[in-house]
Amino acid sequence: MQTASTPLITDNCSLITGNFLRACHRLPADTTPVWFMRQAGRYMPEYRVIREKYSLIEICQHPELAAEVTLQPVRALGVDAAILFADILLPAIPLGVGLEFAKGEGPVLQNPVRTLEDVKNLRPVNPESDLGYVMDAIRLLRGPLNGVPLIGFCGAPFTVASYLIEGGSSREFLKTKTMMYSAPEVWHALIEKLSVVLSDYLVAQIRAGVQAVQVFDSWVGALSPSDYEAFVLPYSQKVLTAAKNEGVPVIHFGTNTATLLPLMKRAGGDVIGLDWRIPLDDGWRVLGDDVAVQGNLDPAVLFAPRDEIKKRVQDILKRANGKPGHIFNLGHGILQHTPVDNVKAIVDMVHEYSPLPAGEELG
Amino acid sequence: MQTASTPLITDNCSLITGNFLRACHRLPADTTPVWFMRQAGRYMPEYRVIREKYSLIEICQHPELAAEVTLQPVRALGVDAAILFADILLPAIPLGVGLEFAKGEGPVLQNPVRTLEDVKNLRPVNPESDLGYVMDAIRLLRGPLNGVPLIGFCGAPFTVASYLIEGGSSREFLKTKTMMYSAPEVWHALIEKLSVVLSDYLVAQIRAGVQAVQVFDSWVGALSPSDYEAFVLPYSQKVLTAAKNEGVPVIHFGTNTATLLPLMKRAGGDVIGLDWRIPLDDGWRVLGDDVAVQGNLDPAVLFAPRDEIKKRVQDILKRANGKPGHIFNLGHGILQHTPVDNVKAIVDMVHEYSPLPAGEELG
Repeated sequence: MQTASTPLITDNCSLITGNFLRACHRLPADTTPVWFMRQAGRYMPEYRVIREKYSLIEICQHPELAAEVTLQPVRALGVDAAILFADILLPAIPLGVGLEFAKGEGPVLQNPVRTLEDVKNLRPVNPESDLGYVMDAIRLLRGPLNGVPLIGFCGAPFTVASYLIEGGSSREFLKTKTMMYSAPEVWHALIEKLSVVLSDYLVAQIRAGVQAVQVFDSWVGALSPSDYEAFVLPYSQKVLTAAKNEGVPVIHFGTNTATLLPLMKRAGGDVIGLDWRIPLDDGWRVLGDDVAVQGNLDPAVLFAPRDEIKKRVQDILKRANGKPGHIFNLGHGILQHTPVDNVKAIVDMVHEYSPLPAGEELG
Repeated sequence: MQTASTPLITDNCSLITGNFLRACHRLPADTTPVWFMRQAGRYMPEYRVIREKYSLIEICQHPELAAEVTLQPVRALGVDAAILFADILLPAIPLGVGLEFAKGEGPVLQNPVRTLEDVKNLRPVNPESDLGYVMDAIRLLRGPLNGVPLIGFCGAPFTVASYLIEGGSSREFLKTKTMMYSAPEVWHALIEKLSVVLSDYLVAQIRAGVQAVQVFDSWVGALSPSDYEAFVLPYSQKVLTAAKNEGVPVIHFGTNTATLLPLMKRAGGDVIGLDWRIPLDDGWRVLGDDVAVQGNLDPAVLFAPRDEIKKRVQDILKRANGKPGHIFNLGHGILQHTPVDNVKAIVDMVHEYSPLPAGEELG
């Protein structure tokens, strides 16, 4: 209740509610917010029930299924944010590259992009008509989420381009790099086109009602900093800026990015993802105080005994040191056979042990 | 010619000859030495001729074939060092884990190591009797190499352990990490045993006549710094120290190691490998002036047009800035379809454009 002696808060801060959104804005939170990349998925029994009847793409393309699957971890885990159930390669479907998810083998593209002709043949994408099921799922989720913020997302231009060029998953990204080095005009044409498609897609998600977005540059750590700067940064920046201009917080995520962090910050993002290869405090120091950070537990730790998990959760919270602007998460997505109980336990631990005031030791 | 006015050099420096060995000791060299990881292999037509008749393991196990294949890149490329043709998993054969190289699929182990019982069942290894073919190949190579230094090598304990636990190649190293976190007594027993086997193996190679050794911790970049320190460092240190005590220079190599470099230096090595994810000057700054560095061209660049290759070779030399102690190499091994002409061209470029005196711009 506002009384005469209470100072009147006139800035925006009091309007931003909920620990997840407050942390995105580097505002103090009651407890450190926590959510998990791939928090909906095969490790959950209730997901597997649905997955037995529908393919991954079918779930994505049926808004009521996508919405249900999005809600499952919110109900089961008590996370501070939901992330829309979708796949970063959904925009590849209307682009016309022949996307398929081969059983147990990940995505396969029938028509990979290798030439300028291939780039020109990519079909224009209108998010509302071509990927309308994603926006429908977002609209369906507004009510049932009951105030839990919903994160929308897309792949970053580099990561999506790498799938389009390689024709699927890759370890060396040789075709991608060879295009950059040997046919830069094709590379730039492709990634420019993707940056427009992905910007439009993300903006459509925001207008449909997500409260934050994450841009997944999962494989960008395959690049040297100079290649990132020349071939990737301007295009990521375009997507991140388009989202930012819609007024929601933007999370910029990658793995293996220890040497890319300053450039990723330059590309944009209110929150930068840190994987487990860099201690959270070191990563935040490199990035500076003017961004929030998300991370950074190794997903493999979720297979460890509870005491070991606790030690590592506490270590991350200690490194964050109670500074506003930390969102607890893994350094990458939850792995397939992760015990659900351990995921739930982490949510409880993060809420119990955070935020830790500066200088205070955890027991 | 020594005259009365020339200062007499009385330290050891003048005894170390050849640009590769001088760079290992951070002594000035006429030109920057260059060799390539996996410089012998399928990208060379003369290798493929032999490979058509013999499997990978057969080549390794026939000293005259291993020696011939080791010599091929020395003849074809003019590199400053030879590296013995072998595989980091050869010690797995006498350990009794059922190593096979499945066609196009990399190594597969029939009996992966998962329990303390499995560790106890690993057979003792005597390098001279169990891996004598490696030492025989080294002895065969002394004459024909005609003064070109020969590098021996082994896998680092972590990388070898990861194959033994996973049963082959891995992307997440989940079984390996789960053993570390959930059954540390099994992990420590395994890696301790491996560190003894690998130390003995490396020492045997040195006594057979290699002039330097490299310890390959190729996949160590999957770990956080704190896991590296607790679970890996002491065992790598044991192997690196055993080699060092034999009086030859030791190269300590890994990929994805930007955040591990200070710990890898602490573990040991006269020379530390740097991959393309960290600019050479930044990596050397992190490591300090008291070690040499090796690297750090992205192997994918060898598929680029010659001008692009040249630009990138010159950039690395510029970052090394003529400082004694740089060995030019890739950030990881040569890829299968690499054009041989481009590999040869890099050797010539490195020799032509180096060492670059401090402050001088390349044309």
